[in-house]
Order: sequence, then C-alpha cells, then structure tokens
Amino acid sequence: MRLGRIGEFALIRRLARHCPTNPALLLGIGDDAAVLSAPRAPALLWTTDLLVEGIHFRRSWTRFYDLGAKAIAVNLSDVAAMGGTPRHALVSLALPAQTAVEEVEALYRGCRDACLRYGVSLAGGDTSRSPKGVFLSVSVLGVAGKGLLRRSGARAGDVVFVTGTLGDAAAGLALLRAGRTPPRRRYGGGVRGHEKTLMLRHLHPLPPVGVGGRLCGLASAAIDVSDGLVADLGHLCRSSGVGAEIRLDAVPLSPSLLAVAPRLPREALAYALHGGEDYQLLFTVPPQRVARLRRRLRGTGVSVTAIGTVVASPRCVVLRDARGRRVRVLREGYEHFRREESP
Amino acid sequence: MRLGRIGEFALIRRLARHCPTNPALLLGIGDDAAVLSAPRAPALLWTTDLLVEGIHFRRSWTRFYDLGAKAIAVNLSDVAAMGGTPRHALVSLALPAQTAVEEVEALYRGCRDACLRYGVSLAGGDTSRSPKGVFLSVSVLGVAGKGLLRRSGARAGDVVFVTGTLGDAAAGLALLRAGRTPPRRRYGGGVRGHEKTLMLRHLHPLPPVGVGGRLCGLASAAIDVSDGLVADLGHLCRSSGVGAEIRLDAVPLSPSLLAVAPRLPREALAYALHGGEDYQLLFTVPPQRVARLRRRLRGTGVSVTAIGTVVASPRCVVLRDARGRRVRVLREGYEHFRREESP
Repeated sequence: MRLGRIGEFALIRRLARHCPTNPALLLGIGDDAAVLSAPRAPALLWTTDLLVEGIHFRRSWTRFYDLGAKAIAVNLSDVAAMGGTPRHALVSLALPAQTAVEEVEALYRGCRDACLRYGVSLAGGDTSRSPKGVFLSVSVLGVAGKGLLRRSGARAGDVVFVTGTLGDAAAGLALLRAGRTPPRRRYGGGVRGHEKTLMLRHLHPLPPVGVGGRLCGLASAAIDVSDGLVADLGHLCRSSGVGAEIRLDAVPLSPSLLAVAPRLPREALAYALHGGEDYQLLFTVPPQRVARLRRRLRGTGVSVTAIGTVVASPRCVVLRDARGRRVRVLREGYEHFRREESP
Repeated sequence: MRLGRIGEFALIRRLARHCPTNPALLLGIGDDAAVLSAPRAPALLWTTDLLVEGIHFRRSWTRFYDLGAKAIAVNLSDVAAMGGTPRHALVSLALPAQTAVEEVEALYRGCRDACLRYGVSLAGGDTSRSPKGVFLSVSVLGVAGKGLLRRSGARAGDVVFVTGTLGDAAAGLALLRAGRTPPRRRYGGGVRGHEKTLMLRHLHPLPPVGVGGRLCGLASAAIDVSDGLVADLGHLCRSSGVGAEIRLDAVPLSPSLLAVAPRLPREALAYALHGGEDYQLLFTVPPQRVARLRRRLRGTGVSVTAIGTVVASPRCVVLRDARGRRVRVLREGYEHFRREESP
C-alpha cells in the first residue's frame, strides 16, 4: 500500500510497533512529546544528523532498512565521541506519497535493530510527505560519562589513536558505485567475502559506542571519523590549536580493504585517509596514560592503534611515510554545500 | 553569497553567532554533541517537528526568518501541551546549494528570536545540501512540571477549555493564499490592521507556553491545536476513550477574524473549528477544579474559554449550536499523506 492512501495517523500506529523501549522511556509515541526519566548523570549529550537522498545516500544501493539503521548508528557515534552513552532516539521522516508503507516499516525496523543493539529507545518522531526524495533526521539523547571528550583538549606530545580499521566504508561505497550488488543483512549481522564485508561497513556502520565512556579521564580529545581521518583529525587539531603527524605505515587497514584495493580506483591508504563514514573513534591520549588506556580497553573486543603524535606546529595534519618523509595530503574529506560530488 | 560557495564549516561558524544560550547549555555548536546540564526535574519532555517546503509552507509568502521562528514555536507548543517547560532546541536544515547565505542566517535569526522569547537555548543542529526544496527539522527538549498533561486523562463531565482564540492562523493562511502581502515583523512583534494580524498569526504562532505548567494537577488531559479544534479534540477523545460536545456559540473568535471573515471564502466558525496551526492549548478540567484553574491563570495574560463538555458517548466530537441542536462537522483537520491539499 502507498503512503498516500494510508494517512499519517494509521502510519504512526503501524510504526509504533517497531519502537523499542528501555526503562528510561516513560512514554513513547502517541502524545505531544516523549517523556523520559530524568537521568542521574553529570550532563546530557544531544546530537542530530540528517540524511538526504541524493546527498548522503542513493536509493539504488540503500534499502530503507539500511537507511534507518545507519541514521541511528551515526548519531550514536556522535554521543560516543563525547564520552557518553546514548539512551533515546527520535526519527523525523519526510517521504514521497508514492512510497510503499512496507518500505517505511522497513526503515523503522532498521532504526529499531540499531537501537536494540545499543540499548537505545525509539522515543518518537514526526512524519511528513515530501514533494521529492527522502529526508531523514535523527536526534539522539545520551548521558555523559565521568568527564567529557571534547575536540579541544589535545596537547603537543599526546599520542593519536584510532579504533578499528579505516577506509572500509569508503572502499565499500566505491564498490557500490561501481554497481556491485549490496549485501542484504540485518544490522549487526556478518557477511562472507571481502567485497561484501566492505559494502556492509558502508551500509551498516557499527560505531564502538561502548569505548567512548571508557576513554573519559584518559583521552585529552576525541572525535568520530565521519568525514575521513585527515579531515576529522584536522577538526580536532583546529579545536585544540595544535597539529598532528600521522605515520602512514601505522594506519590500521583491514584484510578486506587490502584484498580488494587492487581492484579499486584508488589505493587502500587513500580510502583510509580520506574516505568518510568509518564511524571509528579518533582520540588523543597523553603518553603517561597510554598504559592505563590499554588496560581499560582490554576485553572490550575493540582494537585501538597508535597512528601518530600531536605537535605544537605546524597547526595542521602532516603525513609521514615509513621512513619519516613528509607526504602530500591527497584529498580532503567530505564537506557539504561546497563539494559537488554525489554519494 | 550562495551556500554552494561558502561550504558547510564556514556556514556553521556564521550560524553559531545566532545561537542563544541559557544557563543549562554547557556546550553548544562546535563539537560532536551539545552538552546540557542534567536537569533536576521529575522527567524530560522531548519532541520534534518537521517543516517541508511545498507541504507545510510556501516560499512565496514565508520568509526564511518566519520559517525559523515558526519551526521553533510549534515544537515549544508540544512541550507546553505536556505541561512542561522547553529548555533547548536543535535545528536540522537541508537547503538547495543556490540558497543565499543571508537567507540561512535569516532563518537562524528567526529561530533565535523565538528561542529568546521563551528562554530556550539553540544547542546545535546539522546542515546539508538538499537536491530540491527546504527541509527543516527542529527538536526541543524540556522539563516536565509537577505531573504530566497527557491526551488520555479526559473523563465524562470534564469541562473542555481552550486558550486564546481559534481560527486566526487558518484565516491568515487564506489571506496569504489569496495573494495578500505578508507582514514583515520580528517574532513576537505586533501589527496594525485585522488582515495583517491574521496573517501574522499564521506566520508567527505564539503558543501560550507558560500556561502548560500551570495546568499540571488541574487539567485531566491536554493537546495543542495544530490540526484544528475538531481534529485535535478528536485525538484527545480517542486517547481518553470518551467523546465531547462543543457549543459553537462559545468558541472564542478574535475581533480580527470576525472583521475579515465576510471577505473570506468560508465563515469565521469554519476556520475556528477546522483550521489548523493555532497552537493554542486545548484541555479538559474536572468541574470541581475549574475555580482553581481560573485563579491559577489570573495575571498570566492568557485567556481561557470553556467551550464544551466531555461525554461518555458517543465517542466523537459533537457540535451544537446556541439552541443545543446538533450541527454537522464541516471539514476534517489536516492529515499528512492522505490529503492532497497543498499549504
């Protein structure tokens, strides 16, 4: 059935079935506002991210389910990058009237599965017709840990770390652009084969949300890698008034990226440095706290890699090869409005 | 300058100047998430509303400034309708690349002026290109008062009240549709002349936010009038499992609506019953608490009018004229997706 036939209120009743709760959600969909229990926490963290068809995603390789899951995941990543724990999500959605109701339900199932994985409630939202294209705005509310991970605390001498591996999502996007068949999986599910693994990294980012809180009191600054390593490290450096040197041979690359890169238009490292949407955590730690960091992350299943050092000058990101030679930055990360590149 | 030339990060720096703060906003624009002091309140209230060009507004009569102010106001209204006090707002915005930077700044000035009027901080947001049309999603976080105003608490015998007057915004929209020149005012500013007054009610709704908290413990149910009196009272009745009888001669109409209605396509009462976007509060009060209600609202400057009674059956909204005769419902309120009417 098309949205244009079912009407907004019947749609909301159907979608409400896909909304996971948690103990802090006192009242979800169905009234003027969601009601949340006031958390006992030092502070609240609040973020929003917008996904626009034709800008952030293309329908040709993004199922509605994937879109919902990703919209939640990228917001959770922002809360984790501040050292917090996400608790609740709101989903605002504008859709063409000819969209099938089943597709909207699939989008909400994607939201639900991502929320369930991270213990987040789907507290409510808004739906509207859209004259053209899908617009999805998700907002996530979380609680701060003991201390905040700001972008602005990095100091010269701090070690630069990153979780997981970089470049997988961008390489996956390159494969999707080249027309490969996207894998169909539930959010959080695995897949066999290097190409499918990379595409799934793009479609279903799995931000290391649990790590954020563990960095509090240890990391001096943090950001999540959404625009690309070089771009996001640049944001962190600008906020902190410092620069950073990255050792290219230390940048963590996945076996899948290394296996597939020879068939891709750019080399593996280019995806790792300039590809966005990895949703890994990039953070800086004073050297005397590095041993404690490693102890605290033991048993989380999340790998962290030291990839460079914070420097007082120059106040930019400098890349060095294995022999210490300075290498040129190949390509900037993604920025809206100015760049005309499509997703 | 066009958005396509300035880039996202320069834009965000410009917009950050228009973001009002309040003591509970610990960290606004510029990091991964906004940081809010954890409120000492029984609960949090959280809502979101989406405004889509061509669905909720037309650029021909809506300035960017007006759009920003209205997007904030309608969200504040939802928090008030739950008996709460709004504290913080997030603004997510998708705009065509050819939009002038000055227009985006005007939109944020509108958001700012509405936030300032109600003591709300503009905590952050997201910006993106849009392939076509303006999409604006605002989310507002507030604190609950002593008790919640749900839609579901109305009981037979309760008196139905509404704040202010009804139908002004819909009549104003009719004037704008007919090609009248929209008034140019700062949010909250007044205007001379009945037609301009009505148009301003549509462009700059002023929800009686302070009243929401005062209804806690007195009102049995509440909702804000966004879809129209009959439609929203219908929502409230359905949630409560009751019906309601409205006395048409009691429905409060403004002098401006009465003066202009003879020149409009429909009669004044039709706008009051079925016109949306008044953003007044519609609520029910058990008869033994009505005197306390009137005392509590004294001095707020907000008028409330008893317009009818909650009944056990039929479970729908029944309209009666001054002689008690049942009158047919003329037209349903606005519902998305199903209705093909444009704004």
